Amino acid sequence: MAEEKKLPSRSEDFSEWYNQLVLRAELADYAPVRGCMIVRPYGWALWENITQALDGRFKATGHVNAAFPLLIPRSFIDKEKSHVAGFSPELAVVTHGGGEELEEPLVIRPTSETIIGHAYARWIQSYRDLPLLINQWNSVVRWELRTKLFLRTLEFYWQEGHTAHATAEEAEAETRQMLDIYADFAVRDAAIPVIPGRKSAAERFAGADQTYSIEAMMGDGKALQAGTSHNLGQNFAQAFDIRYLDRDGALQHCWTTSWGLSTRFVGAIIMVHGDDQGLILPPRLAPFQAVIVPIFRNDAEKTSVRDAARKLLAELSDAAIRVKLDEREGVSPGFKFNDWEMRGVPLRLELGPRDVAQGNVVLARRDKPGKEGKSIVARQAVAASVIEWLKEIQQALFDRALAFRKSRTVDAATYGEFKDAVAWGFAFSWWCGRSECEEKIKEETMATMRCIPLEQPGGTGKCVYCGAPASEKGIFGRAY
Amino acid sequence: MAEEKKLPSRSEDFSEWYNQLVLRAELADYAPVRGCMIVRPYGWALWENITQALDGRFKATGHVNAAFPLLIPRSFIDKEKSHVAGFSPELAVVTHGGGEELEEPLVIRPTSETIIGHAYARWIQSYRDLPLLINQWNSVVRWELRTKLFLRTLEFYWQEGHTAHATAEEAEAETRQMLDIYADFAVRDAAIPVIPGRKSAAERFAGADQTYSIEAMMGDGKALQAGTSHNLGQNFAQAFDIRYLDRDGALQHCWTTSWGLSTRFVGAIIMVHGDDQGLILPPRLAPFQAVIVPIFRNDAEKTSVRDAARKLLAELSDAAIRVKLDEREGVSPGFKFNDWEMRGVPLRLELGPRDVAQGNVVLARRDKPGKEGKSIVARQAVAASVIEWLKEIQQALFDRALAFRKSRTVDAATYGEFKDAVAWGFAFSWWCGRSECEEKIKEETMATMRCIPLEQPGGTGKCVYCGAPASEKGIFGRAY
Repeated sequence: MAEEKKLPSRSEDFSEWYNQLVLRAELADYAPVRGCMIVRPYGWALWENITQALDGRFKATGHVNAAFPLLIPRSFIDKEKSHVAGFSPELAVVTHGGGEELEEPLVIRPTSETIIGHAYARWIQSYRDLPLLINQWNSVVRWELRTKLFLRTLEFYWQEGHTAHATAEEAEAETRQMLDIYADFAVRDAAIPVIPGRKSAAERFAGADQTYSIEAMMGDGKALQAGTSHNLGQNFAQAFDIRYLDRDGALQHCWTTSWGLSTRFVGAIIMVHGDDQGLILPPRLAPFQAVIVPIFRNDAEKTSVRDAARKLLAELSDAAIRVKLDEREGVSPGFKFNDWEMRGVPLRLELGPRDVAQGNVVLARRDKPGKEGKSIVARQAVAASVIEWLKEIQQALFDRALAFRKSRTVDAATYGEFKDAVAWGFAFSWWCGRSECEEKIKEETMATMRCIPLEQPGGTGKCVYCGAPASEKGIFGRAY
Repeated sequence: MAEEKKLPSRSEDFSEWYNQLVLRAELADYAPVRGCMIVRPYGWALWENITQALDGRFKATGHVNAAFPLLIPRSFIDKEKSHVAGFSPELAVVTHGGGEELEEPLVIRPTSETIIGHAYARWIQSYRDLPLLINQWNSVVRWELRTKLFLRTLEFYWQEGHTAHATAEEAEAETRQMLDIYADFAVRDAAIPVIPGRKSAAERFAGADQTYSIEAMMGDGKALQAGTSHNLGQNFAQAFDIRYLDRDGALQHCWTTSWGLSTRFVGAIIMVHGDDQGLILPPRLAPFQAVIVPIFRNDAEKTSVRDAARKLLAELSDAAIRVKLDEREGVSPGFKFNDWEMRGVPLRLELGPRDVAQGNVVLARRDKPGKEGKSIVARQAVAASVIEWLKEIQQALFDRALAFRKSRTVDAATYGEFKDAVAWGFAFSWWCGRSECEEKIKEETMATMRCIPLEQPGGTGKCVYCGAPASEKGIFGRAY
């Protein structure tokens, strides 16, 4: 139950605003093991809606789900040389099982390329077995030192897709298709504008030829990588001997991809849409799209209001609206208003004795505080109005987030402009492509190359750091 | 892809029939870590249908989902004394994380009563917070020595429900409600007749006051425990200090329950319904309820049959039938028939040039081999016929399984009859309630007390082992 105490404001202490919001909206809680989290029912319901939105898109593009084991022989991690360098420092190691020391230690999967590569090598024989398009929903463990609920936790929840193809072109097309799916999901379901782009070599996944990501701007101007799609080339196919007989009877290595989106995305939703009163959820993903709060002063009023509220609940549920009726006893309507504001329910329906008598319902939008977001609607028009308003709110959240990002993104041509830009948002600047410049920029400004957007202005320019000729522009920012 | 080679028959070698079926129907595969399994896409699609059928029932009865961490401090397991005795020998222990030895070892959850108990102690303050009704879908690890795909694996997938209540009565009602839900799911969705009953003290969950289970008979006459529901009394509430302030302001310990159903259930479906040709899936859970196999001899025939098959696919999909069109090239219709029989698709639709010309489709039931299960249906009536037949198959599978169980269940009054009965099925016999008799029976016959069915004949009798007065009858059998 949310407390009456206010959150710290976002401008005052964004980090603390976030931490308190996550706890007080009951999205997640700290676990007894350092860096782990408990995803509470309200947070999990949000994640379930995210999984459904993505899973439908995966299946519509021919992917199927499966489940690969949690435990991986330590030696598997060593088989791909970039992979071992990237993941070795983060492993959780099982050394004992059933009371005995194991001959070979096992690791809890930090990601599943290796164990899936091992299986694909056995399952794939011929070009007829390709493409192989498998996804899994699970949790993985990476021993992070600095953790924050949803954003970076030792154990986190995600989906990881793993595909194998006959040609480099098909693998690249798959990698890009999945990036598009993530971007479409972010924009349409989460109302989060994202920048799809290519990662620099320094920011690539350990073992990938190319990594693509969607990047979003949070409410404090910082960047968050919200989903990644990797073209693994033949790296894992060679390490795990994933080969197929082509149509001419020649043995070829496959081309593989992997792509993932995690509970980190919940952090993005919080930080993009939330305000000083708490969370604001995009209607398409909100566990409850609307909440009905009954208001009464005595038992007679209570009976008539309660009956009307229950009828309203049934009617809205029938209209496929995810709606909650708050019948809690012993707390005031004002407390309930604050509580559901903290939890970010997009629409509140207030129903008092006068509303019942006059055949009205009061609608209040979460995204517009005060009178501006309130309206009195005739009882018989409520379901239609709610559906209409939810669409409006979904669009308004996206528009606001996009306007915010634009207001904090600067086409920085000089390094001076660049430094000002990344102090409060994104710089979109020419980059010569050399890791040295990227490195220096990071040292001097704490900003990293978030991605080279797929959408480029064309033409050429001068590297914002070294002035050398540059053919691409990158998005730079400080990142979570 | 299923091989042309036949399975061993069930009467010849039931165990090997099972192992080969699981691999060849591509339900699961062995993992590189001993005792772990990979659930392949076809097996996972079946499990997804199981999860949906159960999850809907859980939510309809007020439960919500959440996610608690995989890693549990070793010391938590020690807090409840029966629990530690039961689970200590089976733990997987993480001793290193991020390259360093941990101060306190962590275990991978074998079940989550302890870590959830720890959270509930913080979340529950007053009677207003009760009941707390949470479920989670995840995997757990138990270091089993003798493993078998789906039936007993080191890591397995399941749901575990954990609830807290204000009174003993409410906890018992919850425990029984969840048992009813498992039984209803088994009967209606999996077409598996089950016996709901109470476990003996010896067979109880480590830390429970009462364990209830649903017990099913497999195709070899052996028993399989297919779901369990535990009344944990105040054992975990005391161990983890889960307390609430009651309406009078007095501090009380909660009463808790837990209940689970796992991927083991997939093993039950295989062993109850499968035959010598392979798997037979109940239509309500089958990933594909029907498969269309096009038949043609030349390109002209191929074009017309393919077009007709695709129209049929679209029409059946629109009718909400889960249907697959098998357009694989380079394999014969006969091969496809065998392959889908191995995979247990309830209905096959054959479509050849003559069928297209005459406006017919041939329907073949998986559960009735040969001519008896075949019928020619007019094209315009296909969707309705498929829906009708799927219902019939669902019922026929249940009826057959129930008849089989009845044919192998004996009301054994003497120990001689008892021994004959448990050699090939179940004995339903009076039992005095003493663990000594249960123990002796197990030693001498390998049969265990599966459960004391909730449905009792009434009256009294004499213990089948010792002859002492008995007031309840138990189901005994050899078990998986």
